Amino acid sequence: MPVRLDTRAADFKDRFAALLGAKREAAADVEAAVRAIIEDVRSRGDAALIELSRKFDGVDLDRLGLRVTADEIAAAVAACEPRRVEALRLARDRIDAYHRRQRPADDRFTDPLGVELGHRWTAVEAAGLYVPGGTAAYPSSVLMNAVPAKVAGVGRLVMVVPAPGGRLSPLVLAAADLAGVDEIYRVGGAQAVAALAYGTATIAPVDKIVGPGNAYVAAAKRIVFGKVGIDMIAGPSEVLIIADGTADPDWLAADLLAQAEHDTAAQSILITSDAALADAVERAVTAQLATLPRQEIAAASWRDHGAVILVRDLDEAVGLADTVAAEHLELAVADPEPLAARIRHAGAIFVGMTTPEAIGDYVAGSNHVLPTARSARFSSGLGVLDFMKRTSILRCGPAQLAALGPAAVTLAEAEGLDAHARSVALRLGAS
Amino acid sequence: MPVRLDTRAADFKDRFAALLGAKREAAADVEAAVRAIIEDVRSRGDAALIELSRKFDGVDLDRLGLRVTADEIAAAVAACEPRRVEALRLARDRIDAYHRRQRPADDRFTDPLGVELGHRWTAVEAAGLYVPGGTAAYPSSVLMNAVPAKVAGVGRLVMVVPAPGGRLSPLVLAAADLAGVDEIYRVGGAQAVAALAYGTATIAPVDKIVGPGNAYVAAAKRIVFGKVGIDMIAGPSEVLIIADGTADPDWLAADLLAQAEHDTAAQSILITSDAALADAVERAVTAQLATLPRQEIAAASWRDHGAVILVRDLDEAVGLADTVAAEHLELAVADPEPLAARIRHAGAIFVGMTTPEAIGDYVAGSNHVLPTARSARFSSGLGVLDFMKRTSILRCGPAQLAALGPAAVTLAEAEGLDAHARSVALRLGAS
Repeated sequence: MPVRLDTRAADFKDRFAALLGAKREAAADVEAAVRAIIEDVRSRGDAALIELSRKFDGVDLDRLGLRVTADEIAAAVAACEPRRVEALRLARDRIDAYHRRQRPADDRFTDPLGVELGHRWTAVEAAGLYVPGGTAAYPSSVLMNAVPAKVAGVGRLVMVVPAPGGRLSPLVLAAADLAGVDEIYRVGGAQAVAALAYGTATIAPVDKIVGPGNAYVAAAKRIVFGKVGIDMIAGPSEVLIIADGTADPDWLAADLLAQAEHDTAAQSILITSDAALADAVERAVTAQLATLPRQEIAAASWRDHGAVILVRDLDEAVGLADTVAAEHLELAVADPEPLAARIRHAGAIFVGMTTPEAIGDYVAGSNHVLPTARSARFSSGLGVLDFMKRTSILRCGPAQLAALGPAAVTLAEAEGLDAHARSVALRLGAS
Repeated sequence: MPVRLDTRAADFKDRFAALLGAKREAAADVEAAVRAIIEDVRSRGDAALIELSRKFDGVDLDRLGLRVTADEIAAAVAACEPRRVEALRLARDRIDAYHRRQRPADDRFTDPLGVELGHRWTAVEAAGLYVPGGTAAYPSSVLMNAVPAKVAGVGRLVMVVPAPGGRLSPLVLAAADLAGVDEIYRVGGAQAVAALAYGTATIAPVDKIVGPGNAYVAAAKRIVFGKVGIDMIAGPSEVLIIADGTADPDWLAADLLAQAEHDTAAQSILITSDAALADAVERAVTAQLATLPRQEIAAASWRDHGAVILVRDLDEAVGLADTVAAEHLELAVADPEPLAARIRHAGAIFVGMTTPEAIGDYVAGSNHVLPTARSARFSSGLGVLDFMKRTSILRCGPAQLAALGPAAVTLAEAEGLDAHARSVALRLGAS
C-alpha cells in the first residue's frame, strides 16, 4: 500500500519531507568503468566500439556494420503495422507544429545612446540522439527528441541505439525515418556517448547529445559535458494528480498506474480534499493492477513510492504541488484553470478530467521529455531552444565609445586589468 | 612568439587542428577530494563550513559569522571610491535594460482540433551565485550574474564568496548590493557549492547555482548537477579578431592583450588577410607588453596559446571563425556587418573598429558570461532564461480526446505500456 498522509496530522510536515527525500534509485557507482570506456573509444575508435558491442550487446558489428543502412530502414518501416506508422506520423506532425511556435526571435536594437545591441539565434550544427535498446526503446521518444532538433535547424542528426543480439525495433527505425534522422548507428552504452562526443573513423563527432539512458549512459553524458552539450540527466519519473470529489476514481487509478508501470522507481501521488475519493482510487488501483501486463513493476512502484495525501482544500494542494515540482501534474478538478494559473513548479500541467497524461506522451504535440525528480524547480522540458544557441551582438560608434568608455576604464582599473583599460583608452584618445 | 599560420601553406589544416586541439589547462584530478568535501558538508553542515574555511581560507568564521551583515555591506560601499560605485551603477542599469528584453513570452493557443496547448515561463525561486575570492573577485562579474537573475524574478539570490584571511573586496560587496543580492556568505570552494545545493542550518538550499570558480568549484558543480541546476562549466577564455588592412595595429594589440592578461591559459587569435598588419600587430603586442602590470601572465598566454593566421580573403576567415567558435569575436574590418551576418558560432560578436571587447565586459549591457573553449557551438551566454523554466500546458475536451485518443492507444500498445493505453481508453469509452 502506498503511504497515506493528511495535512491535518501533527507529523505531516516530517512525513511529507521524508516522502520527497526518499531515494528512489540506487546510485550505481559506474564512474570508473565509464571513464575507462570513454578513454578506450577515444584511443581506439571504431575498434573499441566493435569490441565493446560484442561484449555488452552480444552483437558482431564487424559483420553487421556500425551504420544502419537505408535498405534496413526501409525494410523495418515495411515490416511495421501500417496503423502504427500512421499513428507515429500523426504524432510527428503535431510535435512539429507545436515546436515550430517555440522558435525564438532575433533581436537588434539601438539604445538611447546610439549603441547597437542584440542577439541572434542559430542552430547547433550536429546533434546526437541516444535511444535505449531492448524494451525501453520507445518510438515516441525518438520523435520527441528528434523533431525539435529538426525544427531548430540542426543539419546533422545522428541516432545511436544498441542492438542487443543484433536486433533493432522496427518501429524505432520508422520513427527515426519519419523524424528525419540523418544517420543511425547500432551502438549503445557509454561507448556510444564517447563516439558522439569525440568521434571515430565512422561516426563524426556532434556538438550536443540528448536522450535518456541507463546509469552508464547518464555517467558518460555527465563526463563529456563541456566537450559537448547535453540535455538534462533524466531521473525516475513521476505524476502528481490533484483531484476533487467530481473526479472518476477509475480514470485516476489508470493514470497513477500509467506512471507506475514505467519503472519500479517511478512515483505516483494523489492529492485530494475528498477522503472517499482517496479510498475509491486505492480500491480501483488494486482492481486494475490485477489485469495489467506490467503488474509487477507497477505494483512495486505504487507500494514503495506511491502516496495519497489528504488536504483541507485545493489551496493547500497548490503549495504541496510546488514543493513536489512534479514532472507531470494532472488537475482533475471541476474548475481547473484557476488552479493551473497558481502552479509555479511542474514540468507539464494536464488540465481537466479529459486530459490524461498519456495523451501528452504521444500525440498532443507538446514534448514528453520533461524534468524529473523535482528538477522542474530549475529546468524545462526538451524543446527547440535545446538545439539552438544565442550569439550576442554589440556595436559602438566613436560617440558611444566616448560616452561609455570612461566608466569601462574605471572598472577595468579597479579590477587590475590594465590591458582592458588600455584597449578602451587608446580608442578614446583617438576619437 | 605566437604561432603564425597561413591558409596557403600545405600543412595549414594540420597546424590549425593542432591549435584548436591543444590543451590549455591541465585537468586537475580533484574529484575524490571534492566528493569528500560535499559529503562532509551534507552530514555536518555549518560545522564543516567553518572547519573547511579555517583550513582553506585561513579565516575564523566562528568569530566573524558565516553571513556578511548589512552593516558590513554598508561599510564596504562607503569605503569604495565614489566614481567606481558610479561606474558600477551605470553598468547595472545598462545590464538591467538589456536583459529585460530577454524576458520570454508565455504562449497559449487552440489548435485546429480544439486542443488547448501552450507554455508558461516562471522564475527559479532561489539561486546561488559563486564569486571567486582574491584577485579573481570581479565586481563586474557579480553584476553580470546577479542582474539577469533579478530580471528573471528570482526571489532569493544568495552569494557565496571566500574571504581569504577574513578579507572581502569592498567593490564586490558594493556590486552585490547594487544588483539586489539578498544574502551573502563568506564561504568558498567546493564547500560553498555543497552548502548551496544541500543547505545547512544557516544557508537554506537553492535551486540553481551559477558563477565561475577554480577546479574544485567546477568539479563540485558537476557533481551536484541534477540535485540543482548549474550554468556552464567555464573553461579558459578566448578572443578571435578578424581584421583587414584598415585596422589600427595598436588597438588590436591592446585587445589581444586584454584577453591574454586574464590567465596564462587564455587564447588570443588574430586572423587577417594583410601580412603587413600581422607584423605590425605582433610588434605592437611586444611594445605594449613592456608596460603592462600583468605582463607575465599576458606574455605567457600570448607565447603559448596566441596565434596569427593569414588568410587569402575575409571569406576564408568566416569558416575559420566558425570552427574556432570563439567566446569573443571582434570584427575589425571596414565593412563588418556582412561578415557578422555570416558567422554561426560565437559567444558574442563585437562589430567594427570602435567596439573593443572590453566595452562589453563592463558597460555595454550585454552579458560577459559567455561560452568558452569552443562551447559556443552548443551553448549561449548567461541570460534571463538561465533563471527561468517553462511549464507546458495541455487541455483536451471530450471531442479532442476522441480525435486523438485512438492514435495514443495504438502507440501505447505498441510500446507495451498498457496502463497508458487504458488511461485513454477508459475515457474514450465514457465519452
